[in-house]
Amino acid sequence: MSDSGFNTELFLQLGREVLDQQPFSRLLGAELTHLRPGDAVLELALKDELKQQNGFAHGGVVSYLADNALTYAGGTAMRVPVVTSEFKINYVRPAQGERLIARAKAVSVGKSQSVCRCEVFAVLGHEETLCALAQGTITKMGDAPPG
Amino acid sequence: MSDSGFNTELFLQLGREVLDQQPFSRLLGAELTHLRPGDAVLELALKDELKQQNGFAHGGVVSYLADNALTYAGGTAMRVPVVTSEFKINYVRPAQGERLIARAKAVSVGKSQSVCRCEVFAVLGHEETLCALAQGTITKMGDAPPG
Amino acid sequence: MSDSGFNTELFLQLGREVLDQQPFSRLLGAELTHLRPGDAVLELALKDELKQQNGFAHGGVVSYLADNALTYAGGTAMRVPVVTSEFKINYVRPAQGERLIARAKAVSVGKSQSVCRCEVFAVLGHEETLCALAQGTITKMGDAPPG
Amino acid sequence: MSDSGFNTELFLQLGREVLDQQPFSRLLGAELTHLRPGDAVLELALKDELKQQNGFAHGGVVSYLADNALTYAGGTAMRVPVVTSEFKINYVRPAQGERLIARAKAVSVGKSQSVCRCEVFAVLGHEETLCALAQGTITKMGDAPPG
Repeated sequence: MSDSGFNTELFLQLGREVLDQQPFSRLLGAELTHLRPGDAVLELALKDELKQQNGFAHGGVVSYLADNALTYAGGTAMRVPVVTSEFKINYVRPAQGERLIARAKAVSVGKSQSVCRCEVFAVLGHEETLCALAQGTITKMGDAPPG
Repeated sequence: MSDSGFNTELFLQLGREVLDQQPFSRLLGAELTHLRPGDAVLELALKDELKQQNGFAHGGVVSYLADNALTYAGGTAMRVPVVTSEFKINYVRPAQGERLIARAKAVSVGKSQSVCRCEVFAVLGHEETLCALAQGTITKMGDAPPG
Repeated sequence: MSDSGFNTELFLQLGREVLDQQPFSRLLGAELTHLRPGDAVLELALKDELKQQNGFAHGGVVSYLADNALTYAGGTAMRVPVVTSEFKINYVRPAQGERLIARAKAVSVGKSQSVCRCEVFAVLGHEETLCALAQGTITKMGDAPPG
Repeated sequence: MSDSGFNTELFLQLGREVLDQQPFSRLLGAELTHLRPGDAVLELALKDELKQQNGFAHGGVVSYLADNALTYAGGTAMRVPVVTSEFKINYVRPAQGERLIARAKAVSVGKSQSVCRCEVFAVLGHEETLCALAQGTITKMGDAPPG
């Protein structure tokens, strides 16, 4: 436990329990490796079944990782149950390597919404390559989905 | 074969072969059910392993479907190998049901890029509910990824 | 007045009064030419001072028109004071001509948010050319801005 | 001139000449206050005619500033004539104050495209408030507009 009384380990553990309740995250093998309020790192091993026809990570895997990391960043910043209401992603390079790492931060935090940003990197050995950039809105549950 | 000489069945079959070469699309069970130049429909059965903790389709599944449908719409409109260079998605309602259907169209088609739109619906019995709207840029392969 | 009791003329007139209260819309010469719930058309004459260095409409003029048309579509669909909380725009062709026309529709309407789409056309004589496509979230005022 | 031979003053001056060739940028009173390769700062005084009905900067002014700053960041990073092909913006707070400042950076730079990010701040006295975040694609001229 840190001086401020913030229990880093417990926070990360609770985040991992949420991830473990998502069957789709288990299917993809996502791992939460860092979690602080407004700051999340989500990773996965780039198994063959997560690729497209050219051997790169499928765009859907990259966007899953970005989307989920954005949600963790926004949700922990706001400390309420949240959903991603929208995001945009730019794929800037083929995602090739052993792992993917998504690093997300809440940039603007409000009571009902946060705007977060994320970068997704492909990892090969010790080298990280930026593959995608995302920006999206994380909304307090109940406020979000129109209808 | 239609009067215009366009072979609808063959076109769809070729599209399905591409999909079948994507391990991630096989993992998710995606099916291409309609394909014409600039016009694609991609579906999947909403298996439990594609859900999040509340029993809805995981956002990553919805965005995968939108992303891939956009790529098919843009690629068939341009008739060249393509990649999705960017897209944005708005989730408007929890995706709950037996199947998801993504319908995408190329709205503006150029030589090196197309801008496409997609709607994703959840299907329960005979009822379809709009769950997400996407818009993105599909780029001729080789022109797209910076770097 | 129509059979349903909906006063089309009054509705449009009220919309124009709002537009006339926006100094920036007056500066640009924007005109609201059609307004129904969830459906708005906003236009402007393409004066020289709205152009960039190559004689086309400046991107900022096109995005202003899209943004404002989205807000009208979402606001009239929800019947509450609203703001645009986010949007994305794809410029697909240089905006060249005598006028610009933005046509926006609310595609998904909820209590606190609507997701709307817009197309912006350049008009030269009797010909309209699609120049930009936008999609965005219109939010009930007070719910929107984080912070 | 710096040690590296990069002429900071000349670079900024050339950027200002481009801005001065844009009638719309003159109309809004935009000023380029910083320009390095991949790094641009664009500002304007928040005159009354740039506001909406509640006294805040009109969203169209904020998006103009973000769009143009993104273009400068991407264009100077790539060192070729460019256009903004798409961007998304999240408005996070009403833009209220004496000035607006947009700071943009090229985050991923390629031969034909760059992906850039921008933050827009409202300035009141010595205080800056984050009002909007944008992310977009800057494309080498000629490669960009489909059609």
